[in-house]
Amino acid sequence: MIEIFAIPGLPEIRAGADLAALIADACARSDVSLRAGDVVAVAQKIVSKAEGRVVALEDVAPSAEALRLAEQTGKDARLVELMLRESSRVLRWREATIIVEHRLGFVCANAGIDRSNVPQEVPGKTLVTLLPADPDRSARHLRDGLRRRVGVETAVLILDSHGRPFREGAVGVAIGVAGLHPLTRMAGWVDRYGYALRSTVMATADEIAAAASLLMGQTSESRPVVVVRGAPYQPSEGSVGELIRERSKDLFR
Amino acid sequence: MIEIFAIPGLPEIRAGADLAALIADACARSDVSLRAGDVVAVAQKIVSKAEGRVVALEDVAPSAEALRLAEQTGKDARLVELMLRESSRVLRWREATIIVEHRLGFVCANAGIDRSNVPQEVPGKTLVTLLPADPDRSARHLRDGLRRRVGVETAVLILDSHGRPFREGAVGVAIGVAGLHPLTRMAGWVDRYGYALRSTVMATADEIAAAASLLMGQTSESRPVVVVRGAPYQPSEGSVGELIRERSKDLFR
Repeated sequence: MIEIFAIPGLPEIRAGADLAALIADACARSDVSLRAGDVVAVAQKIVSKAEGRVVALEDVAPSAEALRLAEQTGKDARLVELMLRESSRVLRWREATIIVEHRLGFVCANAGIDRSNVPQEVPGKTLVTLLPADPDRSARHLRDGLRRRVGVETAVLILDSHGRPFREGAVGVAIGVAGLHPLTRMAGWVDRYGYALRSTVMATADEIAAAASLLMGQTSESRPVVVVRGAPYQPSEGSVGELIRERSKDLFR
Repeated sequence: MIEIFAIPGLPEIRAGADLAALIADACARSDVSLRAGDVVAVAQKIVSKAEGRVVALEDVAPSAEALRLAEQTGKDARLVELMLRESSRVLRWREATIIVEHRLGFVCANAGIDRSNVPQEVPGKTLVTLLPADPDRSARHLRDGLRRRVGVETAVLILDSHGRPFREGAVGVAIGVAGLHPLTRMAGWVDRYGYALRSTVMATADEIAAAASLLMGQTSESRPVVVVRGAPYQPSEGSVGELIRERSKDLFR
């Protein structure tokens, strides 16, 4: 049995926030106890905000390349400039969509930059979030903080939503991992008839992320932390790097 | 709160099996009650077997094209022949992997053909499963059967595992849908700060499929039916067609 529930009552997250403390407090107030083995799934947005990964578009001077791509896609040139800075290369673009290879290795739209749910704290400024600088480190940091404050060994996933090349709609995926092996290797397993299995590696972290995403919804500010309890996984330090396909093994890039 | 659990005690599925009856019986024996709104996620493999979508490789004569591609990939030419028959075109191949566009529209490895867990009922024959001929119809049929036998309105997903171009590991996805809208459209929604959301369409059916897949594991014969209870979705007749990106909108094919 797997149980998935959101941790209610988290406050608005601001730069410098201690997410472990806020989650521990919210658990205490709502009578939720984290248990050993729980996977704590956290929306990228609040991690970015806690880490101050927020930029005002007004402070961004677009390069010539950004101006060109902005014109071709109808996007804000300052936003495109940030996408270029966050990416190692632009893979595809069409109309309002720019698909990049993020510096962190992910292939994603708009370099994970988002301007929804960023509080407009500064009058006259349009704020956007960038992905955390090192989402695995963010996940480890939160996991360590929860261990200290709640006394249990959890796993932590940082979540974003990614589109897929061949399927419509986005799904929750892990962009940062701590405490679990993101891939479940079934190499060498044989089924009951003695045949080797066709799919030998499952992306367990992404399946857990997708499951948690069901409750996060898209107004992720309201339910940015979701607990997945009872999902089978292999404990490990883990890293999202294991989920990223190397360019050389990629048949479509 | 979402709860996910497997229905235990299903028998080996053979051609002609009435899956709705077998699931209803297994529920009754194990004291599991399906409830209105439950999503019943079923492994493609048992649907294919119930529908007799099983082929003996010994009965397949490979074409010249299949022989050529088999040599290039090191695969069984008879298996490659079936892949070609099941596909509208081969998109990519490398070593042991052939990525096709299935006649049903999915981009997937090996045309969804699988030889794990197919009982070797016929001595000297190597049996493989093909995808159901019309997985939406299979899903509708099962949903109707469950309504008749258990008296509740469920949604049904037929699941397969697909790799992703840019990420390692496979994840559970829906290849047949009945009773829910596979996409949750958030177009027009604005967040609390008045900004339109970046990701406006979530692939809810695929997120539910991934969640269910966590419990199915890969030896899908043992836990081929998993119930997802409490996942938010929009009731609808639904069709997996909504999840398939048209080739013209695809930036990577």
